[in-house]
Amino acid sequence: MDQSRIPLYEALISHANQEPVSFHVPGHKYGHLSPFVESGPFSYILRIDATELSGLDDLHAPEGAILEAEGLLADLYKVKKSYFLVNGSTVGNLAMVMAACSEDDVVLVQRNCHKSILNALNLSKARPVFLEPDYNQDWQVASEVSFSTVKQAIQLYPEAKALILTYPNYYGMVFDLSKMIEEAHNHHIPVLVDEAHGAHFIVGSPFPASAVELGADVVVQSAHKTLPAMTMGSYLHFNSEILSLDKVKTYLSMLQSSSPSYPIMASLDISRSFIAGYEQKDATYLFAEIQGFKKELECIPALKVLEFEDHQGDVLKVTVQSQCGYSGFELQSEFERQAIYTEMADPNNILFILPLLKAGQHYPLEESVSKIKQALKGFPVHSVKRAREIEGPKISELAIAFKEMSCLEEKVLPIKMAGQHVCSETIIPYPPGIPLLLKGERITIEKLDQLQHLLASGARFQGGSLLKQGLIKVFSTT
Amino acid sequence: MDQSRIPLYEALISHANQEPVSFHVPGHKYGHLSPFVESGPFSYILRIDATELSGLDDLHAPEGAILEAEGLLADLYKVKKSYFLVNGSTVGNLAMVMAACSEDDVVLVQRNCHKSILNALNLSKARPVFLEPDYNQDWQVASEVSFSTVKQAIQLYPEAKALILTYPNYYGMVFDLSKMIEEAHNHHIPVLVDEAHGAHFIVGSPFPASAVELGADVVVQSAHKTLPAMTMGSYLHFNSEILSLDKVKTYLSMLQSSSPSYPIMASLDISRSFIAGYEQKDATYLFAEIQGFKKELECIPALKVLEFEDHQGDVLKVTVQSQCGYSGFELQSEFERQAIYTEMADPNNILFILPLLKAGQHYPLEESVSKIKQALKGFPVHSVKRAREIEGPKISELAIAFKEMSCLEEKVLPIKMAGQHVCSETIIPYPPGIPLLLKGERITIEKLDQLQHLLASGARFQGGSLLKQGLIKVFSTT
Repeated sequence: MDQSRIPLYEALISHANQEPVSFHVPGHKYGHLSPFVESGPFSYILRIDATELSGLDDLHAPEGAILEAEGLLADLYKVKKSYFLVNGSTVGNLAMVMAACSEDDVVLVQRNCHKSILNALNLSKARPVFLEPDYNQDWQVASEVSFSTVKQAIQLYPEAKALILTYPNYYGMVFDLSKMIEEAHNHHIPVLVDEAHGAHFIVGSPFPASAVELGADVVVQSAHKTLPAMTMGSYLHFNSEILSLDKVKTYLSMLQSSSPSYPIMASLDISRSFIAGYEQKDATYLFAEIQGFKKELECIPALKVLEFEDHQGDVLKVTVQSQCGYSGFELQSEFERQAIYTEMADPNNILFILPLLKAGQHYPLEESVSKIKQALKGFPVHSVKRAREIEGPKISELAIAFKEMSCLEEKVLPIKMAGQHVCSETIIPYPPGIPLLLKGERITIEKLDQLQHLLASGARFQGGSLLKQGLIKVFSTT
Repeated sequence: MDQSRIPLYEALISHANQEPVSFHVPGHKYGHLSPFVESGPFSYILRIDATELSGLDDLHAPEGAILEAEGLLADLYKVKKSYFLVNGSTVGNLAMVMAACSEDDVVLVQRNCHKSILNALNLSKARPVFLEPDYNQDWQVASEVSFSTVKQAIQLYPEAKALILTYPNYYGMVFDLSKMIEEAHNHHIPVLVDEAHGAHFIVGSPFPASAVELGADVVVQSAHKTLPAMTMGSYLHFNSEILSLDKVKTYLSMLQSSSPSYPIMASLDISRSFIAGYEQKDATYLFAEIQGFKKELECIPALKVLEFEDHQGDVLKVTVQSQCGYSGFELQSEFERQAIYTEMADPNNILFILPLLKAGQHYPLEESVSKIKQALKGFPVHSVKRAREIEGPKISELAIAFKEMSCLEEKVLPIKMAGQHVCSETIIPYPPGIPLLLKGERITIEKLDQLQHLLASGARFQGGSLLKQGLIKVFSTT
């Protein structure tokens, strides 16, 4: 197929070139009615903020330009079927999980998955079996679930309806996914992969292999995270012999707007064409730029550039660790004073996501390092205080099932008093959006400690609305 | 509160003016990486396609600019709490229904509701009791559920957990909602209103009162339909003494992208400010423009301009009926050849949605009528073939409950043979996106007739993937 084509974008441009008179939604009428259109950010985009008109197809029942654009996407990723998503990888994760499991079904799931996976399990009232990831002492972050944990879980729960993994993790770490897929498929268990951060892996070296290439059943990718799509633009790839494509499609149709955004869909079409045209010479250029950037960062005494184990990981992600007694959050603020915005900070680290440059494209990497050097000049060098590793069980279940939770009352306790109670709210330090305590999990003493550590080091939270007042919600009957 | 402020838009502009260097998502890096940015529709918008950075707040846990922007929205609509939605009114409908009801709960629901309402009932496994709308013989469309039907349903099901209504309907018709809300509240039943097409009603005369003003518990509005928001931008207003705000918030957070689109959110902020500044002189000007447009349309023999009963309805909606033997679909195509795009056609009618012009703003209304006149010149005048009214029961339930459906097998039948079977797919002629047959409903002979009529007159469908081959899916055990 001709991957240089951009059928949906082209259809929108043709439509706009007709200078259509709109007697339909949206209400801005191609920008005619909007304030701030003459100049400013909305100047041109509203001309393609159209709706399901003749020639523009329908995301929920595609027969024309959208069908063709999705066909090009499936062709590029070599899968049976690909979908454009306009509600982020969130809706892809919801749909793939809800399609795979029903009430009381056992599902094996990486415990530090994205909250959308947990929400999906909650909505389907499935019975999650959590697989605890290993902890990387150097990086001080969770890495991957080990193969032995996956293998043991499959032995314990051969009836599982799915194995759900995150690949790569937020920091760009990868692992031997292929082996896990083989093990799961040997037991007829489909593997669902949240590859939100890996839409660009299909480029090949120096990037790791994509979960799509490694044989996963369903893979969800945020095209907006590393490809040039607009925010909320994602892909879902279906390549399963086990799962029902119809069910995935049904949930996507239930959970996405019946008026999907054409600018977002067009940007998904453009992104597919962009990545299809990404050549080895581009990758070589990019890799050299990133190596240069890292080398310069290494010259800053207050920072340490972390390296992936065996150099296996996403080179677009560069993590630096504080060596100056400041937390990652504090360093992030320092950078922001120089108008340098990073993806995420945790108590020890800062994560940079670099742009997927093509050969010859400039990005202010040198200029940024100079500013960072200036900002951190004279910062004292301290050895990093190592956090205690939390040793939880490798395989665990909720203390209370999703379907029982709705019948229970809640109460509020001071955080210090909450040990051994069952948490009635999910508490997620954000970013990286990975839960510390899940609704329905017991609050162990170790988790209590970690929560207090995060609070003290200035992390932001989703959930845990009373944390700032030193309070936490628990189920009252337990 | 100062409704001329636009806090989120202002925060994004301030952020962009810093000329930030992005080491974060989205991958286009404020447009740096995107093809087609130098010129074309994405030229400026990507500069504000940002993410949850310092100063830009977080939709799912707002504390800054988004909290302030939602506060201004709630202040304008005079409700307890308002939310920005980035996944359309679809997600607002899902969240309000799922917050109001659980498995096996009886819910009274207008049968011709938007499919997102039905999806919500399906997801919550509630027990819907359908209220059949009346049929308007002149317009040949469904109008509203009568008060007597609502009253009777409440008497039969006083335990109902919610009354769910659509107001206005797609064609702009309204009804005495206030009386129904009073009746429901007398029985402690909350009223949830899909006001997707009524975000502008708050302007006052010549528009009908908004469901928000009439005392509904939760109201969902598509800001993108009649206000100048980008597509997928909607509002949810909460004003209930009966329902839990926390539950609504929880479902919104579960069902919307964890990376919501800042351009869409900014356009919601701008739209609130736009409608807050809409004055009576604007409304007077607009009304005169619309009257002029209708008067000119009335001069075309092939068309009849339909009028609302007692002049109660949304004047932004203008429906014309074919008087020339052509279907609405065929006339719509004729208009499109002149680059005039209307909102919807049905077998008899065409619906125009007019822009919410401010005083002095030009829109090519005259030019459009001239082109329509030209296009329809010499079209024969025929009296309209009146469709038979379908007399269904005013109050009905599904033949099979949602939770039983997943255990049943399906089979495919020729449409002609499907009478009295239970349909296993929802079949929605689109637009207007209102279901003809619901999954789990019995296929009566009347419905079979209507389906064949729609197929013959060229309607498009969502669901019913085999209709074109003359086939329909049914549950096989019934």
